[in-house]
Amino acid sequence: MNFKQEMEERISYIETVLKKYLPPKDGFQERIMEAMEYSLMGGGKRVRPMLMLESYRLFGGEGKVMEPFMAAMEMIHTYSLVHDDLPAMDDDEYRRGRKTTHIVYGHAMGILAGDALLNYAFETALSSFDLENHPGIPKALQVLANKAGIYGMIGGQVVDVESEGMEISMEKLQAIHRMKTGALIQASVMIGAILAGASSKDVQIMEQVGADIGLAFQIQDDILDVTSTTEELGKPVFSDEKNHKTTYVTFKGLESAKADVEEISKRAMKTIDGFSGEKEFFLELVKSLITRKK
Amino acid sequence: MNFKQEMEERISYIETVLKKYLPPKDGFQERIMEAMEYSLMGGGKRVRPMLMLESYRLFGGEGKVMEPFMAAMEMIHTYSLVHDDLPAMDDDEYRRGRKTTHIVYGHAMGILAGDALLNYAFETALSSFDLENHPGIPKALQVLANKAGIYGMIGGQVVDVESEGMEISMEKLQAIHRMKTGALIQASVMIGAILAGASSKDVQIMEQVGADIGLAFQIQDDILDVTSTTEELGKPVFSDEKNHKTTYVTFKGLESAKADVEEISKRAMKTIDGFSGEKEFFLELVKSLITRKK
Repeated sequence: MNFKQEMEERISYIETVLKKYLPPKDGFQERIMEAMEYSLMGGGKRVRPMLMLESYRLFGGEGKVMEPFMAAMEMIHTYSLVHDDLPAMDDDEYRRGRKTTHIVYGHAMGILAGDALLNYAFETALSSFDLENHPGIPKALQVLANKAGIYGMIGGQVVDVESEGMEISMEKLQAIHRMKTGALIQASVMIGAILAGASSKDVQIMEQVGADIGLAFQIQDDILDVTSTTEELGKPVFSDEKNHKTTYVTFKGLESAKADVEEISKRAMKTIDGFSGEKEFFLELVKSLITRKK
Repeated sequence: MNFKQEMEERISYIETVLKKYLPPKDGFQERIMEAMEYSLMGGGKRVRPMLMLESYRLFGGEGKVMEPFMAAMEMIHTYSLVHDDLPAMDDDEYRRGRKTTHIVYGHAMGILAGDALLNYAFETALSSFDLENHPGIPKALQVLANKAGIYGMIGGQVVDVESEGMEISMEKLQAIHRMKTGALIQASVMIGAILAGASSKDVQIMEQVGADIGLAFQIQDDILDVTSTTEELGKPVFSDEKNHKTTYVTFKGLESAKADVEEISKRAMKTIDGFSGEKEFFLELVKSLITRKK
């Protein structure tokens, strides 16, 4: 099997897990379940749950306990996109070539669908207590909450929103990247390691690996915004420029940004390669993040 | 000490707990911490954490483990108000006589402050694992997430938003009340009981007590909307009518609604009175919910 086939197999497995953990659509509140499903099953690369799975395997994990966490992670990522697309935020009508949630379900339901996905993420991750008596679950839950919140993703979102249209320092830009994109990727590889029973030293090492992957991923995003076509990307290009955002590319220039992506990714790959577990696909996955076109 | 003094003492204790669990205001994302504090420390009766505390005492609880849950409960209640006040929802500029969060901090920050409070609620409740090794924590967390989500508060909010300006059945109206207001009150008394080590049968009994208190509380809200003055209530009266909402009062009439509040509250009080623990304040608190003026 080549990398592309392995990737598709994993995406298919992850989407099966997502469907399993989505709430059944019934009751008076049926429409919110529809909106959650519409938002969550809208495609995408499923990078975060995939990284969680690979980190779990790297440390010898073999059970099902990471499944609710994989679903929770993708729900949190998805809710952040749903709220990010709202008129008061980025005001986007399309994402991945489909209408955004608030365009399909209305503005109020867009807010509520995001809230519902965030809350249901915790409801889902907490259901892991019913699967098995696993000593890593409390720590995994704490990492999930911490990296999704004001010290992680939401924190990055806040600084990003506040910096719009302003010149910002490289320090602040990197803080935005570290929190907004990096934190959930960190949480993914940390939770995979924790649930596989890795030592706290190894979990800490994976926190740095996640930071590197996240930063490389975000710089690549900034690069694609100026080098792709709308068709390739599935959303308008130059949207960062349109929104007057300072990005890594406007700061350091295209060539330098590309070199940084490569260097940071290689550092992460070297660390992963230092562990003895199943790592072939993990390494190829990280590599693919720097050559991706969308 | 009379009831009013005891109430004030409890509110003061709860607000000390809230302040203890609020994140310190620093870092690039300082403004979101300010918005969270502004939203959370805006007064209010603190009914949910107070009910949690009374239920905890009723079943003999004596530790500090319920404190992060009390803070988490009030954070969840608060986020729901912050998002409810947004222009796409109820579009309210004032709450409890103060400007609403999105008016003070801007629309985008209103959305993010709500998200941040919801996420931080779980971060806070999960910190209970660091306080003590308590066997009830996983169940308490599950109840919190379940009652705050699509099968609880958010579910009620969704059906409420969808029913706006439409004639709805009594069945649907009661489902809205049960979920939108009842669920968090249920969670409060259930979590108090769980953390005090009550049996699962007693937790189930408290779930019904919570449903009764919640329903009485919501009907009283509907009653106050038509019988209070703006000054007493701290928000515009007749706001339900203004928003073309079917309420318990428009359905059953004022006198019948008042009688129902009394009957339902008495049923809850009788059950509480059946337990042997500390219950004097708990009973007075429930009674006060049916005679409150705001």
